[in-house]
Parts: sequence; C-alpha cells; structure tokens
Amino acid sequence: MRPVAIRNIERADAAVLARLGAAGVSTVHEAQGRTGLAKTYLRPAWSGASAHGSAVTVLARPGDNWMIHVAVELCQPGDMLVVAVSSDNYDGMFGELLATSLRARGVRGLIIDAGCRDVAALKELGFPVWSRCISGQGTVKATLGAVNVPVVVAGVAVSPGDAVVADDDGVVFVSRAMAADVAGKCDARIAKEKGVRRRLAAGELGLDIYGMRDALAKAGLVYLDDAGELGDMPQ
Amino acid sequence: MRPVAIRNIERADAAVLARLGAAGVSTVHEAQGRTGLAKTYLRPAWSGASAHGSAVTVLARPGDNWMIHVAVELCQPGDMLVVAVSSDNYDGMFGELLATSLRARGVRGLIIDAGCRDVAALKELGFPVWSRCISGQGTVKATLGAVNVPVVVAGVAVSPGDAVVADDDGVVFVSRAMAADVAGKCDARIAKEKGVRRRLAAGELGLDIYGMRDALAKAGLVYLDDAGELGDMPQ
Amino acid sequence: MRPVAIRNIERADAAVLARLGAAGVSTVHEAQGRTGLAKTYLRPAWSGASAHGSAVTVLARPGDNWMIHVAVELCQPGDMLVVAVSSDNYDGMFGELLATSLRARGVRGLIIDAGCRDVAALKELGFPVWSRCISGQGTVKATLGAVNVPVVVAGVAVSPGDAVVADDDGVVFVSRAMAADVAGKCDARIAKEKGVRRRLAAGELGLDIYGMRDALAKAGLVYLDDAGELGDMPQ
Amino acid sequence: MRPVAIRNIERADAAVLARLGAAGVSTVHEAQGRTGLAKTYLRPAWSGASAHGSAVTVLARPGDNWMIHVAVELCQPGDMLVVAVSSDNYDGMFGELLATSLRARGVRGLIIDAGCRDVAALKELGFPVWSRCISGQGTVKATLGAVNVPVVVAGVAVSPGDAVVADDDGVVFVSRAMAADVAGKCDARIAKEKGVRRRLAAGELGLDIYGMRDALAKAGLVYLDDAGELGDMPQ
Amino acid sequence: MRPVAIRNIERADAAVLARLGAAGVSTVHEAQGRTGLAKTYLRPAWSGASAHGSAVTVLARPGDNWMIHVAVELCQPGDMLVVAVSSDNYDGMFGELLATSLRARGVRGLIIDAGCRDVAALKELGFPVWSRCISGQGTVKATLGAVNVPVVVAGVAVSPGDAVVADDDGVVFVSRAMAADVAGKCDARIAKEKGVRRRLAAGELGLDIYGMRDALAKAGLVYLDDAGELGDMPQ
Amino acid sequence: MRPVAIRNIERADAAVLARLGAAGVSTVHEAQGRTGLAKTYLRPAWSGASAHGSAVTVLARPGDNWMIHVAVELCQPGDMLVVAVSSDNYDGMFGELLATSLRARGVRGLIIDAGCRDVAALKELGFPVWSRCISGQGTVKATLGAVNVPVVVAGVAVSPGDAVVADDDGVVFVSRAMAADVAGKCDARIAKEKGVRRRLAAGELGLDIYGMRDALAKAGLVYLDDAGELGDMPQ
Repeated sequence: MRPVAIRNIERADAAVLARLGAAGVSTVHEAQGRTGLAKTYLRPAWSGASAHGSAVTVLARPGDNWMIHVAVELCQPGDMLVVAVSSDNYDGMFGELLATSLRARGVRGLIIDAGCRDVAALKELGFPVWSRCISGQGTVKATLGAVNVPVVVAGVAVSPGDAVVADDDGVVFVSRAMAADVAGKCDARIAKEKGVRRRLAAGELGLDIYGMRDALAKAGLVYLDDAGELGDMPQ
Repeated sequence: MRPVAIRNIERADAAVLARLGAAGVSTVHEAQGRTGLAKTYLRPAWSGASAHGSAVTVLARPGDNWMIHVAVELCQPGDMLVVAVSSDNYDGMFGELLATSLRARGVRGLIIDAGCRDVAALKELGFPVWSRCISGQGTVKATLGAVNVPVVVAGVAVSPGDAVVADDDGVVFVSRAMAADVAGKCDARIAKEKGVRRRLAAGELGLDIYGMRDALAKAGLVYLDDAGELGDMPQ
Repeated sequence: MRPVAIRNIERADAAVLARLGAAGVSTVHEAQGRTGLAKTYLRPAWSGASAHGSAVTVLARPGDNWMIHVAVELCQPGDMLVVAVSSDNYDGMFGELLATSLRARGVRGLIIDAGCRDVAALKELGFPVWSRCISGQGTVKATLGAVNVPVVVAGVAVSPGDAVVADDDGVVFVSRAMAADVAGKCDARIAKEKGVRRRLAAGELGLDIYGMRDALAKAGLVYLDDAGELGDMPQ
Repeated sequence: MRPVAIRNIERADAAVLARLGAAGVSTVHEAQGRTGLAKTYLRPAWSGASAHGSAVTVLARPGDNWMIHVAVELCQPGDMLVVAVSSDNYDGMFGELLATSLRARGVRGLIIDAGCRDVAALKELGFPVWSRCISGQGTVKATLGAVNVPVVVAGVAVSPGDAVVADDDGVVFVSRAMAADVAGKCDARIAKEKGVRRRLAAGELGLDIYGMRDALAKAGLVYLDDAGELGDMPQ
Repeated sequence: MRPVAIRNIERADAAVLARLGAAGVSTVHEAQGRTGLAKTYLRPAWSGASAHGSAVTVLARPGDNWMIHVAVELCQPGDMLVVAVSSDNYDGMFGELLATSLRARGVRGLIIDAGCRDVAALKELGFPVWSRCISGQGTVKATLGAVNVPVVVAGVAVSPGDAVVADDDGVVFVSRAMAADVAGKCDARIAKEKGVRRRLAAGELGLDIYGMRDALAKAGLVYLDDAGELGDMPQ
Repeated sequence: MRPVAIRNIERADAAVLARLGAAGVSTVHEAQGRTGLAKTYLRPAWSGASAHGSAVTVLARPGDNWMIHVAVELCQPGDMLVVAVSSDNYDGMFGELLATSLRARGVRGLIIDAGCRDVAALKELGFPVWSRCISGQGTVKATLGAVNVPVVVAGVAVSPGDAVVADDDGVVFVSRAMAADVAGKCDARIAKEKGVRRRLAAGELGLDIYGMRDALAKAGLVYLDDAGELGDMPQ
C-alpha cells in the first residue's frame, strides 16, 4: 500500500444514486445479481436511517483514524465516506466532531468497518453511520493509510466513486459502471413486486403466483396428509 | 431427511397459548423447569414485539427459502412459522412479501434460525420476526427441505404444533403435551411474583423474603466489615 | 477466591461522579488516557439510558445469581451494581424483581458481564442495565462467590468504590483515586471541544484546526490529482 | 426438566456401529440425507482420534459437572458419553480423572457441548474427546440435571442409545431406529466412491463422471475464452 | 454476477512464485506494504503444510460446490484453487475426491472461504487446504456461480492469476502485476533479517539494532527504577 | 495510562514457580479457588508446550508492538513476557526475531492477548507462545504503551512479578503474594488425586469415592429403571 490521497475521482450519477437509494438495500442487492452486500455485522448506529451517495474511500490502520481527517477535505456534497481498516479493529474511530465536519461538507453518511462513538449525538445530528460496533475507544493519529484507493469493506471490494446504499437492512455497493443498469433493474423489480404484493395480501399463494408447484413435484417433494404416513415411505 | 410436506398437524390449544403468551418468555421458561429457551442470538427484528402460537416447522437448506413458500399454504390463523436451516446460514431468507402472505393467512409471527430483511417494512406491517441477523442477502429456490417435521431451532428441539412464545427476552418453545401444565405453573408463578414485587418495592430484601440467610451461612459465606479483615482470614 | 461479602467500602465522591456522568463515556475514556473502557459487547438493554455511580462489585458463578441477592443489601443510594462472572456466561441473571429491589435502595443501574431479562419491564421501570446479552435463561442460587472484592468486568479491572459511567457508547470505569483528576480533565476537554465543534460546523477542516498538514507530509503522505498518477510512483 | 437418571436404555447394534465407525463422519452424514452433523465448533481435543458407540446422554447445568459423575455408573462397554448443557458454557467439565473412570468401564469416548481439560493426559491415555473448547476452568457439583433423557448437542437432537460416530471431521449422530439402514447406505456409498476415486486419480473429470455438463448448460453457465468476452455479454 | 467460466487467464511467473513461496506468508505480507493477508480465520486443515501458485478463482453459492467441479477442468499444474462464497458459509464444500482430482491435474493446494472435510485423508494425500473450518456437512450442486472472475476471499480482493502463498501463518495474495517487485523486496528483507537474527541471538537488543531509543524518548517514554516512583509523576 | 517502563520488579520465587509449573494449569487453577484462568481463546501456537515464570507485563496499543521491544531489555532469565493490548487486536505482534531475542535473554515463553506469527519457526526454536490467534499481519512502532504496570490479559488482572503457568490447557496467573500458598495446595491436591486415580482405574466409582450418593438423593435425583417410568412422575 502506498500512502497516497487522491484528490479527484469520478462519481456516480446523482439521479442514478437517487433511484438506487429509493429502491433500498435489499432490492439493489437482488437487482445486481445478489452481489455487493456488506457482511451483516455492519449495522446502523441508530435505526431508521437510510442514505446513499458516491463512495470516498479510506484505508485506515487499526486504532488510528488519521486518514479519516485527510479524507474529509476530499469529500463533496452527496458523498458517502467509506472506511476500511487494514486489519480487524473495533475502536471508536469516528464520533460527533468528525460527523459535524462531514455534515458541513454535505456528506450524507459513513460506512466504517470498525467502531463509532457518540451515538446519542450522531442520532441527534441525524448523521447516519453503519459500523461494526459502538465503541468509546479512542484512536491515535500516527500511521498513514490512503484515501480514494480501492478497498475491501465488510467483504466487498469497493472503488472510489462506487454507489453506496445503506438502510436498516445493511449496506450494498454498486460499481459506478453498473449503477445505471442496476437502477433500471431496480425499477423493474419494484414495479413487478407491487403487483405481487397486492395479490399476496389478497390471499393468493406464492406457490401459484410464481408457478412453483411443478418444479417442487419434479424435485421430488411429497405431500403427506399426516406424520403417520411417514412410516410408509422408503428412506 | 426425506423431502416431505405434512399437511395436517395437531395444534396447541388456543386458550393455553394465550395464557403462555401473557406470561411471557422468561416466565414460561422458568415454569417449565428452565428448559426450552432458544439461544440468545435469536433477536427481534424490531423491539417491542411479542407473539405466540402453534409451530408450523420448516427445515430449509442454506441460502434457499423454497420450503418457506411451501409452508405458507399449510399455515392457519394463530400459527407461528418456525424455520430451521440444515447448516449455519445468515442470508435474508424472509422479507416483506412473505410477511404479507403470512399475514393474509393469519399467521402471528416468524422464528427463523437465519437472517431476515426488509425490516423497516416488517415493522410498519407490524409483523414480528425473531431472527439470527438482519441481512439483505437474497436466496434461491432450488433444493428441497421439509415442512412440519421435527427440527432443532437455535438449540431447541421443536415439533410441529408445539407452543411458541416470543418477546423482547427471546423465544421459548413448549411441547404441545406439556403446554397446559406449563400454563398453570405460569399462572401460579405470576401470582406469587406479584406479592414479592410489592414487598421488594417497599424495601424488603430478597435475602429475607426468600429466606436465604441460613443457606448462605451454611454454604460458608463470611461477612466482613471491611477489606482490611481479609488479611485475618485463612486462604 | 474466598467467599466473603464486605459490608463497608469507600465510595467515589458524589460531585465528582456527577461531573464524570455529565461528560459521558467517550470523554471520560479519553480524559484518563484512553483506558478503562469495557469491551464493546456490553450494551444497554434499552437505548437512551445513561447512569453513573460508585461500584458495588459482585463475583458470581456461571448460571448462579445468588451473590447478586447478597449484594443488594450492601448497596446505598447512588451506587451502581457491577457483576463479574468467574467464567463466560450468557444466562439471564438479572430481571425485573432484582431491579425493583435495587431501585428501592436507590441504586442507579447495573453493569453485568452476563445476560439480563425482562427487558420490556426494565425499560418501563426506567432501570438502566448494560449487559452481555438479553437472555430469558434462569439461574440457580447454589454456589458462593463474593461481594465487594476486586473483579475483572468485560476486560477491565474494577475495585469496589470505583467510579462507573455508562451510556449508549458503553461503560467506562475510573479508579476512585483518579476520579477527581479525570473529572478535571473531562471539563477541560469539553471546553476545548466546544470551540472545535463550532469551527468544524462552520466548515473549517480538522487538518487545519489540529495543524496536521506538516506531520502528514513528514510521515510521507503524497497527494495525487488522480489515480492515473499512481503509475508514476515508485512502489 | 425432571431430575432423573434412567438406568436402562436400548443400545444401537454393535455390528452396525462398527460399520458406521468404519465409514466415518462425512460418509455417515451423507448417507442419512445430510442430517445429524454436530455444529463445527465441536472439535477433537487431540487430532487423529476416532470413535463410535451408543449414546449415554447427560443434561448438565452450566459450570456444574455433577451429572457426569452420575452417568459414569450407567455406562457400559462400547458406549459414548454425550453431554449437553442447559445453556452455553465453556468450562472444563471433564478431565483426566473422569476419563480414567470411563475407560475403566469400557466407554469409548466423550462428546461434550462445553469444555474439557487435561488434554495432554487425555492424549496420553488415548481417550478421545470432542468438545467446544479446551478449558482449565473447574466446575462445581451443586445442581441436578438428568441422565439418559433426550438432549440437543451442538444443534442435533440426540436420544439415549442413538449411534454416535466421531473423527477428525467432527461428530455425527444417527437415530437407533435408522442405524442399520444408514450403515447399508454407507456401504453402498463407499463402494461407489472407490471407483470414482480411481477414475479421478487417473485424470478423468467429475464433470464427466457425474454427467454434469448438460445440467450446467441448462442452468445457463456460459464458457468464455477470456475475460475480454465479458464485455460482450448482456448483464 | 454473471454465470460464466473463463477458460484462459494469465498466470503469475513460476520463478517469481517460487521465490514468494520460499519467503513465506509473513515476509510476503510485509514486503508488499502490509497488505494482502487473508483474515486469520483461514487456517490449515493440517499443520506444517505450505504451498504457492497462481490463483484459479471460484465464486460459489452457500451450501453448493457445483462451481468447484467446473473449476477443476480449468486448472493447470502449479495452480492454487481459491474459492469464495457469495455469503458466509461453513459447509464442507471440499473433500478427498475433489483433492484427488485436483492433484491429478497438478494443482498445489486449495484456499476456501468455507469448510472442508475428509481432513485425515487430505493429510494422508499431502494435499494442503486452508479453510474457514472443518465440516462434514455435505453440499448440493444446484446453483451457478462463476469461475475465474475477481472475488473477495477472507477479506482480500483476488483476481484470477494472482499469486497465492500459504503456510502455517495463513494465506497472502499478491497481484500478478506486483509479484516480481514483491519477490525482490522479499529477498532484500530476508537478507537483512539474517544479520539481525544473528545479532539478536548473540544478545544484542532490537532497541539498539533498530536505533529506537531516541524515538522512544522523543515520544515521551519515561523509565522508572521501580513502581514506587509512579507516585511522583504528574498524571 | 502513563507511558512508563519500570525497570525493577519483585519476582516470584523460582522454587515456587517450579512447583506450580509441575502442577500444571488446571491443578493450579483449582488450588487457588478456581480463579486466575485466562479466557479459553488463548491457545498455544504449537501443542505440547509448557512453561512457567515470573510475569514481565506489557501494555501495547492495537497494531503496534513497540513496547514489546522496550520490554525485552527488562526481562531476566526465568521470566515470562505477558502482553496486553489496550483494545481488541488480532495482528501478528510477535514472531521469530523477537523470540530469538527473548531466548537470548533466558525468557521462557510469551503470553499475548493478540496474534503471533512465524509459528513454524517458533516451534523449531522451541519457544512457546500462547496467543489469541495466528496472524501474519505486521505491526508498526509508533505509539507508546507501558512496561511492568498492572494489566488485564484475557480477562485476568496481572501484576508484574506474578506467577504464570501455561500448558496445553491454557494459561493461569497467580499473584506473587499467594504463589507459595497455592503451590502448597497444588502438592496436596496432586497427592490426593494420585490415590483417586488408582481407585478409578480399578473400577471404583466417583459417586462412592467422593460420597455423592446422599447429596444427590437429598437434592432430589430420582433413579428410574427405564424411560417408561417417566410417565408416572409428577412434572
């Protein structure tokens, strides 16, 4: 890793980001072929938040938040700050003061593969954070990392400028190149689900709506009237 | 495991279920001899929910929610759907559409030894879910499991028709055969605790109410006035 | 371990405790040189709570809450009960009845390196608990531990009478001897952060406020205009 | 749970057990429809061990090994002792002295959903143990559990007299009623795998031996000559 | 994710791979700027193994090893098979038969972000595997993934053809483009450490060899003759 | 935490240490009242090792092994180096070069609440290490901690000069003040167990040797001839 901070990156399109944000994490994840979802240990610091934007990426060292300070200057309105750490760390690398600074720059939220703190203040500020844990543990400013280089965050490879969507279901990343295509698939998916939801609410079965009965029979599913019939089946 | 779906099961008695539900998880667990509690990793998808009902059981395969679709049809009003997975899995096997479908059939809630998603929508629907994690990760419909066979969920053996009680303290299962007996013990326990609670609130000590002082002395507890006296004790 | 209950301990000064409580967990932790923070697995049973007080310590055995009953009698108004367990345990050692009893004695909250239960009732009572997990699992009263001896709780060594501060960021302990000194450092820190917060909110950068640019350059951070320049750098 | 010790149980057939033991854990698990495998946290205390036998079951309380002492007397030559705990526990419930006693009674090994200790001595004795962890932590003898009742061990429901097979791959349980049938399926599986192994060693591909190519094509797998062709594919 | 299998990839240079393999995991990791190390949960299935080669990558679905069968055909002598899974999975996706097949094709070892089984046989074959766990749990062949696409394995982004080095210290990946450069840095590092090792063995101190004393003093380290002097220090 | 290195500490008595080492971890733990055992996640880097000595303690920062270098100079023959970290860390803070240096000073082993690396070399050197994990991840030398101050290691409070015993069962600490007393209790325990072991090997039951039958009956244990009798019992 070379200790660099890259000033200019290409960002995802704002209108596309808005459509992805409206679709939400689970729909985006499905629409891009069930990929890009962060591991489930990334959770919102306060529930009910959602956010989307272009990724400004940080590679920090364990117990050291120096590079987050470097990254603030390189953020623009509409960005999401995305922090990876070079080895597993649970310290509270981010708190109220950094949130105040990011908010002043128009940043929409933070994804951090480590801990955050000052959660009561973050909630009051309305600044959304998805983190590995809540931790009051402070950090040092001693060792360089990098800003706006490719990173791996909670199991997903993320490049600067990638689309980020986060809500109560977790965090999903979409490569900038694919973002418009995925947004289109989200729209189609939402339209289709609307009809399905109405039919399910009316009591129709997914088995019938999705036409699963034949496939189940072909796969070998056997319906029995009661458990007593199990004894008559071959093992 | 044979790929079967059993249509008819005997269910726990509705009045008994209501008494168990009113007692709540911790009381039910105590009343049946401190057994039947699911491991603590099963947590409510949204806090404040509680639910009770008869178990319709599902054995699913990891990353595959096909059998949940099969199970919906076999549910009745007042049931709780209880999903086990054949090996550890954290995917979001259950979301808003399945909740809409279960709600349309009168199902009261879901216990799932895997992940769930669409948690904001589940909360808005008021459909309670206890799961291993929140995950947007989608699943396939490719491999058979079984419906209404005995399963192990979060460390507890559960049979179809067993009583299920879930609230903010977690999830407890009671075998159908024992349900009435346990409900009776819950009632007795609640009555007794009411008096104890009043006495404790008035400042009486548990040591006196429960008569523990003799047993403590017999077990060898020594009261010292201050830490300085420790030096005079034999090791 | 000798099975003792020590009646009298020296407590932290009430005015100092109030200042530490007002500062909050993360500030106290920083002010005492980034030490004393409990591991992040200790979480509030209900969010939004905060509490502070002098530690009354308990060493319990796994699955056994007998010593908590012994400790209640030794608590005074303004205390925090702090429960360690002699080996890892996740049972629900503490619930509504014990909370009622502690509240009657003026105890401000509980820190427990095991599970708690009756969380809905605890929230309704407004009795704050920081625990390792929520668990309905009941416990026995069969084996002695100790009260008011030094313990290790969630990775921190705690002595009776130490200061305890807990909020949504977690739990921090301060030795009684250091409490006044740490409170002074908290006050200084809070005063200083107020000015920084205002400047950050106005758009100034931490890089400038904290004067980090020289140190970053000296450490070797290289700013690049875009990723294309990476190719020109030596590895 | 009622505090009982049941003296007489029906055991699995010795010849069937020998065939299951010879097949090994992974083959037995496959042969019974991929069920019955204990969670992977159960590991051998020393590697290279294998064992099989009829289960004598114990339900112990956390941090308390009293019921193991009760169970010893009820074991016969050829048995495996199988210990469940009523809530998660990691203490060293079993060590050299108990192993010496079990060995004197002809017991073949121990499965314990908690910790064991004296591992150097266990290895020297050649007494095989599969446990959740290694722990020197001692236990008390204060609270009753049960012997020879149905239990859940590492996620599997086990009844007294069930077949147990354990080796470096982990632990698998087979219900006594199914044991002969599963042994037959193991034999068939082993015979079939022998031929497959020889063909694979000679360089034939599983794709051809198992005839997977058509199914892969039907499922939609696309072969590309190189990554450059990805650009020509529809998303 | 598109379901593709890419036949031809560029591989890392064999001579470079040999130098990286000789350097070992920890040295390679340091030489490339402390990056590329897999998370520590990837452990050797049997200790004492080491291996290196070019990565053939697989993206599998949870509980489904179909794509591993597809990948075998695309491997060449000197390759390492590297298997990612699209969500966390602990099943035994790989065992003796697949190892026999890979060995017949000259593959040097397996890295799998899931479980493996038949460990006794793998050890006997001398086929090295680094996996997340040991598990006898079998898998299905039902859902497509991809072969030779970029993946994330145990927290590291890996592309087909990247260099892989694995030993008792874990697993490290080096991008193909950097491999020669990193090998050069390894050689330099090894040469330098040889001299340091000899001096340390002779009793010289790292403090002196590395010239740390000034930096420590400047950072503020204070040497005290004994703990009694602590009382004289300002906090 | 003040950044100090304390040069002179009082050490545990060599003869007492030898007796504790001969007794082994589990016996020492029992002999001092079942206290002082490190959490079970501390495991030997290579099995079969055992070591004992006086603790030289280090408090390091996450991802930073600078203070270990400081500590080496302060070690004497017969010491054990004991490293705590100020927040959870899994990096490979210790490897072959530091082991070479410690060995040159007569240090007997390392206990580290973080990772270690170069495990093949450590085994070849015969230098024993108990660590949280194996990790090739390198560390920096940038931030001060302290040497020879009280620390908490894997859940146990340890002071400089305390006795340390480590073997395949884990790690136990004994305060210097109690060491002689605990060694005496170990001797008594070993003498007593020798007789018990012989009787157990001869087929006597622990139930009889320890005289447990009365206590079991008094506690309410009921022996049944077979499971059929359960139906006749009151719940």
